[in-house]
Amino acid sequence: MRSRLPQRASAWQKDGSMQWIAEVRQAVDGRLEKAFAARRAELEALAPDAAPVLDALEALTMRGGKRLRPAVLVAAQRAVDPHAEVADVIAACAALEVLQSYLLIHDDWMDGDRERRGGPAAHVLLQSALRTMDHPDASQHLADSLAILAGDLGAALATELLLESAALAKRGHETLAAFVRVQRDVVYGQAMDMLGSRDVSRMQRLKTGSYTVEGPLELGALLGNATDGQLAALRRYGKPLGEAFQIRDDLLGTFGDPATTGKPAGNDLRTGKRTSLVVELEASAPSAEREAVERVLGDRGATDGELRRAMEGLVELGVKRRVEARLATLVAEACHALDGAPLVLAGTALLRDLAHLIGSRES
Amino acid sequence: MRSRLPQRASAWQKDGSMQWIAEVRQAVDGRLEKAFAARRAELEALAPDAAPVLDALEALTMRGGKRLRPAVLVAAQRAVDPHAEVADVIAACAALEVLQSYLLIHDDWMDGDRERRGGPAAHVLLQSALRTMDHPDASQHLADSLAILAGDLGAALATELLLESAALAKRGHETLAAFVRVQRDVVYGQAMDMLGSRDVSRMQRLKTGSYTVEGPLELGALLGNATDGQLAALRRYGKPLGEAFQIRDDLLGTFGDPATTGKPAGNDLRTGKRTSLVVELEASAPSAEREAVERVLGDRGATDGELRRAMEGLVELGVKRRVEARLATLVAEACHALDGAPLVLAGTALLRDLAHLIGSRES
Repeated sequence: MRSRLPQRASAWQKDGSMQWIAEVRQAVDGRLEKAFAARRAELEALAPDAAPVLDALEALTMRGGKRLRPAVLVAAQRAVDPHAEVADVIAACAALEVLQSYLLIHDDWMDGDRERRGGPAAHVLLQSALRTMDHPDASQHLADSLAILAGDLGAALATELLLESAALAKRGHETLAAFVRVQRDVVYGQAMDMLGSRDVSRMQRLKTGSYTVEGPLELGALLGNATDGQLAALRRYGKPLGEAFQIRDDLLGTFGDPATTGKPAGNDLRTGKRTSLVVELEASAPSAEREAVERVLGDRGATDGELRRAMEGLVELGVKRRVEARLATLVAEACHALDGAPLVLAGTALLRDLAHLIGSRES
Repeated sequence: MRSRLPQRASAWQKDGSMQWIAEVRQAVDGRLEKAFAARRAELEALAPDAAPVLDALEALTMRGGKRLRPAVLVAAQRAVDPHAEVADVIAACAALEVLQSYLLIHDDWMDGDRERRGGPAAHVLLQSALRTMDHPDASQHLADSLAILAGDLGAALATELLLESAALAKRGHETLAAFVRVQRDVVYGQAMDMLGSRDVSRMQRLKTGSYTVEGPLELGALLGNATDGQLAALRRYGKPLGEAFQIRDDLLGTFGDPATTGKPAGNDLRTGKRTSLVVELEASAPSAEREAVERVLGDRGATDGELRRAMEGLVELGVKRRVEARLATLVAEACHALDGAPLVLAGTALLRDLAHLIGSRES
């Protein structure tokens, strides 16, 4: 496949996403379909009885929509290499998506989240699968175990896909080391989250920023054989943008539309997540005024009315507005880091697109 | 470190193990200590609150004793390269041990095994740790989640160590692909086991043989830059030996001494594992005579007396003897595969040592 990416990002689609991102998504989806078809054939020969594990990994992966991380990787590659070809990094893009499936599957089980991407989480899906196949043991523990294995399979398959990247030939060792570092960061971030670390911004950077923005940028840059100066510029761009992604995630997790986020309304309030909204609330509002929010925090049985009142409280206290202002500042910082950077112009246009998309995404 | 391995294996230690294996063990332990010290420093800077996860991974890894898989890797390297240096593959040896920790941590949680290597399994250890640190949530789910994360960290760290191998420079891509294939095989094997697949020999080959014998052999061969003929010879040696390892494991899991195996007596009977003893029993004994064994199979509350009678039953029915004979045949087959193979003589001596050790090990 030859790259057909536009040299300048301009074309917007009806649904508000950019044309080039839609093209990356299509290419990644195609590569993922090919990868799973090959693994399906391999499984049939090797271990047909283990099919439910591959099924769950594939279902969750193919249900994913945005393919944002691949777009970040492609933009970084283009920003460092004027002759960049999407075909050379498409397997690495697919690797990022399978890596994400692995992380989501394990996290959903840990966090007790039953929905993901508008469908059942892997451990929920696998319990249905056990029932459908009339398995004598339809216990949740067996379903949970199979979900952990589906994640583990994803970890292996992600590295396998990265190894299939044509562009790996240039700086394979560094690229693999970066890929593994991302995994380590996410594990540490998730452990901090599970243990209730008060160091929320560090936790979020490790847990989400690393594999959403900074990791894909570094991988794209290494696959595009970046100079040290280019890598440094992309890091200056990526650090605020990773934080921006997390803040947008927090806003969506509390105020997002379930129809587009694929998660229940007010989900983060119910689960008691220490979002940037909660941190801002505690820092800025007197304790008497926080009551409507704090009542529902972590209460999985909170009513829709209670959740609505908590959301209204966050708006009225100006918490939502201040968090949104912080988000806008971070997006501006990311774009500012591109000014005068030693990057390829066509690529910086894509990076600017991404910064605005990350700051305004609805899902 | 320069290699000080003997050119021919001959020196036996007081405890029955070979001198060269003890030397590999010592080198691997040193490399693991160094690796964990580096990760400890990194954690302090990056995510100090996530310490319990690294603690658990380190505790389980350093409690391991035999370092059998590194010995297999070193023997394979020596069998293909007359100038083999242990120093060039020692990080890969450490990677195998950390990979094993990852797999054991996840498996122990899935299988509900509370003891490992004569100490608590990771999910048990982590629950104690939460109590010791007076964590507000001392639930088993939190401890289980942290154990899954400790395993995930092990997966990342194992690849990281492999990337640190000096010998990787030669055929890094193939070596990494083999390392990932081992992980995929083990996941499929464990999924088959959890789902109760009747295809026991295939399940065992994937679940255990792959990462115990065949994987380490392939890694050692690739790191030693083997020819295709050498790789093929090592596969002919490894296939029966992997099965032999599993059979010895089954014998130890049922008849082994808890003091040396680190697992409770008759553990496999209690957990209802479909060992080669159970398969042989079903194939050879009339159903009336199987009663003493079948009564305790999968009964975690079986008394010591019942377990003893089941073991006696397996002896009296000749099941143990026939399984031991099969083991001896497989070990002989493995050694036979070395005759006239295009391998370095000093290495084949080590491989023969390993075949006999694997067939007769007590832990």
